[in-house]
Order: sequence, then C-alpha cells, then structure tokens
Amino acid sequence: MDLSAPRRAPVDLRVDGARLLARLDELAAIGSTGDGGCCRLALTDDDRAGRDRVCSWMRELGLEVQVDAIGNVFGRRAGTEDVAPVSTGSHIDTVRTGGRYDGCLGVLGALEVVATLNEAGLRTRRPLVVGVFTNEEGARFAPDMLGSLVFAGGLSLVEALDRVSIDGQRLGDELVRIGYAGNAPLPLFRPHAHVELHIEQGPVLDAEGITIGAVENLQGISWQEVVVEGQSNHAGTTPMRLRHDAGYAAAAIATFCRSLARELGGDQVATVGSLTLHPNLINVIAARAKLTVDLRNTDESTLQGAERRFAAFLEELASTEGVRIRTRRLARFEPVVFDAGVVGRIGQVAARLGHSCRPMTSGAGHDAQMMARIAPTAMVFVPSVRGISHNAAEHTTPEHLKAGADVLLHTLLELAA
Amino acid sequence: MDLSAPRRAPVDLRVDGARLLARLDELAAIGSTGDGGCCRLALTDDDRAGRDRVCSWMRELGLEVQVDAIGNVFGRRAGTEDVAPVSTGSHIDTVRTGGRYDGCLGVLGALEVVATLNEAGLRTRRPLVVGVFTNEEGARFAPDMLGSLVFAGGLSLVEALDRVSIDGQRLGDELVRIGYAGNAPLPLFRPHAHVELHIEQGPVLDAEGITIGAVENLQGISWQEVVVEGQSNHAGTTPMRLRHDAGYAAAAIATFCRSLARELGGDQVATVGSLTLHPNLINVIAARAKLTVDLRNTDESTLQGAERRFAAFLEELASTEGVRIRTRRLARFEPVVFDAGVVGRIGQVAARLGHSCRPMTSGAGHDAQMMARIAPTAMVFVPSVRGISHNAAEHTTPEHLKAGADVLLHTLLELAA
Repeated sequence: MDLSAPRRAPVDLRVDGARLLARLDELAAIGSTGDGGCCRLALTDDDRAGRDRVCSWMRELGLEVQVDAIGNVFGRRAGTEDVAPVSTGSHIDTVRTGGRYDGCLGVLGALEVVATLNEAGLRTRRPLVVGVFTNEEGARFAPDMLGSLVFAGGLSLVEALDRVSIDGQRLGDELVRIGYAGNAPLPLFRPHAHVELHIEQGPVLDAEGITIGAVENLQGISWQEVVVEGQSNHAGTTPMRLRHDAGYAAAAIATFCRSLARELGGDQVATVGSLTLHPNLINVIAARAKLTVDLRNTDESTLQGAERRFAAFLEELASTEGVRIRTRRLARFEPVVFDAGVVGRIGQVAARLGHSCRPMTSGAGHDAQMMARIAPTAMVFVPSVRGISHNAAEHTTPEHLKAGADVLLHTLLELAA
Repeated sequence: MDLSAPRRAPVDLRVDGARLLARLDELAAIGSTGDGGCCRLALTDDDRAGRDRVCSWMRELGLEVQVDAIGNVFGRRAGTEDVAPVSTGSHIDTVRTGGRYDGCLGVLGALEVVATLNEAGLRTRRPLVVGVFTNEEGARFAPDMLGSLVFAGGLSLVEALDRVSIDGQRLGDELVRIGYAGNAPLPLFRPHAHVELHIEQGPVLDAEGITIGAVENLQGISWQEVVVEGQSNHAGTTPMRLRHDAGYAAAAIATFCRSLARELGGDQVATVGSLTLHPNLINVIAARAKLTVDLRNTDESTLQGAERRFAAFLEELASTEGVRIRTRRLARFEPVVFDAGVVGRIGQVAARLGHSCRPMTSGAGHDAQMMARIAPTAMVFVPSVRGISHNAAEHTTPEHLKAGADVLLHTLLELAA
C-alpha cells in the first residue's frame, strides 16, 4: 500500500454500499431466525460464531485484533503517529427476536470505513480502533451495555464476570467457554474521540424523511426486577376478597406503568416486557410473579419522580392485596449529553455529503453512552422503517445504510486528522 | 370371610383413622415436593407410580380392578345381588403445587370404607365400586374432570385421546406410555347412586367450625385461553402512543377480570392463573401474550353475562390497542344441582354419627358433577384449614379426615342396602 499517494481525494471518498450489505447479510445468517431476524444472545454459541466472523474480517483488513478481559474485541489500524486513537464500533449481540442491523451496522459500517481507507491508500494521523462490545442488549445478562460500561470504568470487572444469565450461567464462565476471555488491559486505550453509527430503532427519521440523525443526548434508563409473593389457592373456592393473588398484582403493576407514562407525558416511556407467574396454571391463584419494569426519560429529575411514584404504588398495592413485593435494581443510567463538538461535526459532514440531517435524542441505550464517560462522543443515526426494531421486521434501506457509513467515514477522517 | 356373621353391628361401624392416614402419607410420598405438598400431574411417571400403588391396595382389599380406555381405574366389590352398583371415588392427579388431600381423600377414604367392611365381614346388597378418574385437575390436559366426563358421555373418547398437554404430549400416547390405556368398556357400569368424599378447598366449614358439608350444588365453570398478538418493538424508542403491546393488553385483561368479579359480586370468581409473554425480555415490547381466564358462578345466567361482558371488553381492547385477540374455549360446564335425596341422606348420616353438618355449594369442579349426569349423586366435604388448597400447606385435621370417611361409609351402606 502506497501511503504517500492516495488514489482519490478524501473529500470524494465513499464507502462501497454493496460490500457493506454483503457483510451485513453474512453476519445475519449466523443465528438467523428464518424470518429475516437474528437471535445471537450474548456469549452463546451463535455470538461466538458471529465474533469469529468479525475477527477474521478484521484480520483480512489488516487490523491488529485484541480482546480484553470482559470480551470486548478491538481491531486497531495504526495512524501515522502513535497518539490517542479515534474509536468507533458497536455490538453484535441481539435480543431473542432481534433484527439484522441493530449493532451490526455500527461494527460492519466501521469495517467498511477501514476497507475504504485501505483501498484509497489513506493513513490517518491518529490510529483508528473498531470496537465490538460485549452484551450490549442486556437480553441475557444485566445490565445492558455491560462491556462498554466495564471499559469505561463504571462497573468492576469482578462484578461483571459474576453476573448470572437468564439461563443460569455465570458471565465469566461463558466468556471462557466461547474463547473470548482475553488478556488485553482494561481499558485498552483512552480515545481522543468516539463515534458510533447505529440504526435509530425509533420512528422519527423515517416519519420525517430525514437521512441522518446527529444524536445529541440519550434517555436515562431505570430497570427494575419486581417479585410479588402472594398465596396460591384454588381458583374456584377462594372468594375474591380473600385472595392474595400475585398474578393480579403483577397485572396491576403493568397497567400502572402505562398510566404513569401517559400521565407524565413528554418522552417518558414505561414497559413491562417480561412477566412470569408461578405455578402458572389455569385453576390456581398465582403464588409468585416476577416481572421487569423499564422506565426511560431524557430528564433525570422526571425519571426520578417516576421511580418514586412507582415505589409508592408498589407499597400501596402490597398493603391492599396482602402480598409481599420486593424490587431489585437491574440497571440505572442517568440521561447522557453527548459532546457538542462531535455532534456538530456529524451535522457538518452530513450536510457536505448532501444528506438531510437533524439533531435528535436516542430513546435506546448504546455503548456510546458509556464511552461518553471517558471521551468526547456522539452518534450517527440512520432511519428505521416505521421505527420497528428488536423485531425480525427491522429494516433500513440500503441507501440509508450506505449514507450512515459515509458520514461515519468522513467524521472519523476529520477527528483522526 | 364369614359373610353371614358380621362381627359388629353396622350402626356402630367406624373406619380406622390411623390406617387411612397411613395410606394418605404413603401416596403423598409419590411426587412429594418436599414441603408437604405433591406434584403428580396427570399421566406423568409420578401419576403412574401413584396409580400402581392404589391398584395394588385395591387388589390387597380383594377388589376386582378394571381400567377403561380413558384410564379411569375401577375397583369392584361384589354385592349379594348382581344389580347396579353404588359408586364412589375421586382422583389422585394433582396440580403442580398440589396438597396431600385434594382427590386422594376421596379415593383412599373409599378404600378405607372397603377395608372396614372387609374386617366387619359385611357384604352389601349392591356392589360397591371405587373409581380413580383420569386428569381431574386439568393442570396438564384440558378440560379438567376429563376422565369422568368421558365416562358420563360428555366428551367422546376419540376427542379426549387427542388432547395435547401443556408439555406437548398427546393424551392417548401418554396413557399407553404409563400403561393405563385399558380395555374395559366405556362406561363400565351405570351407578345406582354416586357419592364423592372430598376436602372443601374453601374456607367455609373451617371458618364456621362445622365438620361435614353436604354438597347440594356446584359452580358453573368457564375456561378460556386468550392469545393477544401485538408488535414487538424497542422499549426505549417506541413512544407510548405508537405501541401495540401484547403484554399491556394481557395485564389489562387480568385487571378487568378482577373488576368484573368484584362488580358482579355474590359468588362470582375470576382468575388469570397462567400468563406468558413472548419474547419476554426486559427491553422489548411483547409481541404476543397467552393467558387463561377462569370464570365461575352458581348461576348460569350470571355466568353467561360475565362471559358476554368479557368478550365485549376484549373487542374494545383490541381496537384501542391495535392488537389481535383470539379466544379458545378450554372448558365450559353449567352449574350442577346434586340429587336432593342423596344430599339429605348425607345430612342424616352425619347427624346420626354426631357430626355438625351444613348444606353447601362447591366452588371447585369435581368428578361427581360428571357422574351427576348419569346417576343420583352428591358429595361429602370436610374442612380445609383456612381454605388453603392447590398449595403445599393444604391441610385437614386427622379427626375431620376420619369423620368424612365415616360419613361416606354409612352413606354408601344405606345406598347399597
């Protein structure tokens, strides 16, 4: 590679959309659910297969691959100077009913940037690092964004390795099992800046016909597990007034969450996505219910208010129904404000490339929010058709996938200059 | 055995409470949950082990054992005349969190009656038959009371054998697997009268300090399965107004059932005992919910009214939430009125034996309600401490267990005279 003589001027440089799509397709085949979707829960055999594929692409592209002790994978492209790198990347784990682009676009878009720079014979001043973070989804281990959280120093490695999955496996053991308990130091580097490309997973860009979102902030997230203990009893012979029905209490909690979100309005959301009853039989009043509550808001004080009202409701419900209710915090992240300089740069790049662009809020959590703790950070969003995500029908048009990677390319080029 | 010379006069005859308790303990050890409770779901290996134990006791007591094509087991004690028998019995299958007495008391109490008659050298005029009916609980196969329903001609054998369990097994295959697909004709006999001894499973007798319930009627039962199909989506990025949340809809159905029962009052009960979400993840709006609804009332027209209002609620909910809701009837039994003659006889026997007694309604379904279709039938209830049932803490005092068996003994003696 002749580094001194770029074949094209950087300003005209564009990624190869077809090559990006081909890699997305190939990765989506690993853990395919057969309906266009993917199931690669963190640290399962399918996650391993996906990681293996990404690592071999990294090596083919000449990146130096390192894995740290929490399983984060980093592919490093040397700069002309040995200074703090500009980093990018995302995750390849999915929820059980995941789509093809959530996370994967950020990883494979970054590899496409590297491939484009390689072809152009361009070497940046700063090194570039492409990261694949462990367990972003939180669908198998809590909390979500675990790998980037440990990287940024927000959770100790020891605590993280001891997390237990929904199927009863210890995270540290699963990392060893799939061969991704690495020995790179934690953190491996401290970025000069960090940019993550991701699909929006919400309806805003698609509804407004805008191609690029420059993400300036991110909702705060409050995750709790709630366990209700009542008394199992016969569904026919137990009068309504004598029941201590854990199933009813769980349902009342879920409907309260809906009312709470509606009442607070704005961007407050509340979701009970997981709910299990025991013994879960048609003619037995449930003795026990376990459910999760996901509350999010961009405003920390409103989110705290929602948590307080939720706690007060649980107390009242426990007393009215004669049930015991325990809660356990699974994750709690304050709203994040991204670096205005990086956000502004994304907007300028998008404009220069001829793409419509708007500043926006992310409703989802992302690895970038953890990286924001240690470096100037922002995100590039591309539209999700009808806002559908965490669903096999998740879709982003090829044009938008390419546009996002082009914006990533030029944002990284400027930051690494 | 000298049948012509009874060792004691029938009027003073009493069962052996210790022997009854010993058999109850021995049966409870099969499928023991370790906390005083039992799990012998219908047609599992534990159910087979329980059946084997009961059959060997029957043979030891000199009963002729026959098994019909739906797996009902009958032990026959010949009378002095070959006329229609008087039958009794119950079931030994349990719910997953079952107690020790539900069903088993009716079977082992009947065997204790036989043992007592054998010891006394008493032969009744009519034959006595002790039945063990298949799948009374309905916890593994719907509907409940399946074996007695088929016996009474309310469900065809072919349909019953094709029922599929909650773990995906066909009933007919499971019967063959555990060796209880018998060849006795269906029905094996038509009883002159039928009496079932059972624990109350409700709080009435215990609260009022009464020993014997003469059950004169039985609540009607309506079981439905409800499937809600919404759209899975990201819990953070999907505004509340754009959700089609199957989990919320399921919770709203459960809280509606509570309101409906409260509003109708009287003895109306409503239970959502089983509820599962898919994909059941903390950060994904549920795409699908499956739940069961159990409605019961002694008054058929009120029960029909509850069903109509429930259906109307589902229609409204589907429209408001933009979800699809399908229902499937799992079981439907009208309220049953037992034979006044048999009920009155139970009351007279109880009084003669010196036990307090009251006429009452059963809130639970029982095999006797099916037998009532083909013969004069009633039930004997004994108290359940604090009304707890379908729970490891289910309890009836030894005195009450014995009192119930004594009342059964003398009621059967009179009916079989």
